Amino acid sequence: MAISNYLYPQYLRVSSGGRLCIHSSGYSWGNRKKQILRLLCASAEKPVEGLYVESKVQTLLDSVKWDEKGLAVAIAQHVDTGAILMQGFANQDAVLTTISSRKATFFSRSRSTLWTKGETSKNFINIHDIFLDCDRDSIIYLGKPDGPTCHTGSETCYYTSVSDLQEQVEGSKLALTTLYSLESTISQRKVELAAAQSGKPSWTRRLLLDNHLLCSKIREEANELCQTLEENEDKSRTASEMADVLYHAMVLLAVKDVKIEDVMQVLRQRFSQSGIEEKSSRRSEG
Amino acid sequence: MAISNYLYPQYLRVSSGGRLCIHSSGYSWGNRKKQILRLLCASAEKPVEGLYVESKVQTLLDSVKWDEKGLAVAIAQHVDTGAILMQGFANQDAVLTTISSRKATFFSRSRSTLWTKGETSKNFINIHDIFLDCDRDSIIYLGKPDGPTCHTGSETCYYTSVSDLQEQVEGSKLALTTLYSLESTISQRKVELAAAQSGKPSWTRRLLLDNHLLCSKIREEANELCQTLEENEDKSRTASEMADVLYHAMVLLAVKDVKIEDVMQVLRQRFSQSGIEEKSSRRSEG
Repeated sequence: MAISNYLYPQYLRVSSGGRLCIHSSGYSWGNRKKQILRLLCASAEKPVEGLYVESKVQTLLDSVKWDEKGLAVAIAQHVDTGAILMQGFANQDAVLTTISSRKATFFSRSRSTLWTKGETSKNFINIHDIFLDCDRDSIIYLGKPDGPTCHTGSETCYYTSVSDLQEQVEGSKLALTTLYSLESTISQRKVELAAAQSGKPSWTRRLLLDNHLLCSKIREEANELCQTLEENEDKSRTASEMADVLYHAMVLLAVKDVKIEDVMQVLRQRFSQSGIEEKSSRRSEG
Repeated sequence: MAISNYLYPQYLRVSSGGRLCIHSSGYSWGNRKKQILRLLCASAEKPVEGLYVESKVQTLLDSVKWDEKGLAVAIAQHVDTGAILMQGFANQDAVLTTISSRKATFFSRSRSTLWTKGETSKNFINIHDIFLDCDRDSIIYLGKPDGPTCHTGSETCYYTSVSDLQEQVEGSKLALTTLYSLESTISQRKVELAAAQSGKPSWTRRLLLDNHLLCSKIREEANELCQTLEENEDKSRTASEMADVLYHAMVLLAVKDVKIEDVMQVLRQRFSQSGIEEKSSRRSEG
């Protein structure tokens, strides 16, 4: 699994070679960098590997093409949904602080200081991994937010769309990718039901109102997905049937008030512990 | 559905008020802006609405906090997978060109010119929507790439991870969110099978090898998901069973060599045509 636990405190606190390093509150650059690198170093199983990691992280940071102000673009992305939460800028210190604190940290250009997202709102972005792009001037902070990221209370900062203007839509919508657009559409149908809006009920609304119909459709679509394998149907049939399974299962999630994000979190937690394979295997054998 | 068709050519070509505007190849700013806004305007059903849209798009662009070089950060994101493909910078002209051409277009700071991603490689990023953040200094180009985005041939430009360094991993991995990390893990198990690696087979490998077991698990998990609704189990059970359905169904996708991205594309295309509801309804009634 690509998602690593390397940033968790219990891991960082492992002392090797007798060095147990404590996160410093000082911001003196030279000492701070050494402290953070030592913290990283302490996470390695053996001192020699720790030094190797320290050297590689420093090499990586040295390879970043910081701009004339010492900054690179830093994009915070939701590890489960893929939503782009916010974008800021980071200097080396901000990246090192993000690594050591596991909270997305940026450099505020207006205040010329480091700031950790959530230091006021408590809606931190808990970092799972950090990526650099091929040009080494752009950074992804991949993490899980504690709450809405935007200061407006919106889940993400991106809620103004050009197409809204062109479609004369009032209000705003989030920048959602396909699965989450689908979830949003289904939720909207549920709201419409509650508002008892008239008109011919859509298929989604019919499913939302009829648990028996919904469950029979989920079982039917799962069966049809399996048949594409059992009867060696072509790939486009498999994709189509999987889309049916997903759509109908997501209507069930809406009925139960479960977000697809919660499902992703279950998957991530199982995989980071290699849990899903173990659990499934145990149940199958049991 | 949040995903709009507003940028499709057939829509843009609708003439209103007798004005049919052709995409200009000139880069003279004033004229070009007028041409592009007229193109947007022509997409409206009625001239008066077209003028309204023109005015609102211009107002929106005027509200962008372009930096001292006239630029804002522009992030290209995959509409189906949520993957951050690349990040560049855009000026007003780049955004207007992106709107009119429906291809992600940036301003090259090194060459001081507009460049459309794919103009050399032909791997364009076909834009579905454009979002601005709350601060109006960051832009998302939400689109579907024609092929790998990175000049290295990688799907995205973000394939260097800090955790890789710390885990002493050789090679690189993409910045993947949960669903796509799971897909990658399952694919890896399939590769391991082909390489006939020894050791106790994981649950995933057993499923990959045994279609009968796999299909019986998919049907079983779909049934258990339905039972959480039928028997009024709590939300965490629903999330857990949905995770089981997703995982097992994704193993089937791997067996059939179908990517979850292809499934998302099916969902998106159905929803942009309100197709899934219509199709499902038809089948149910038939």
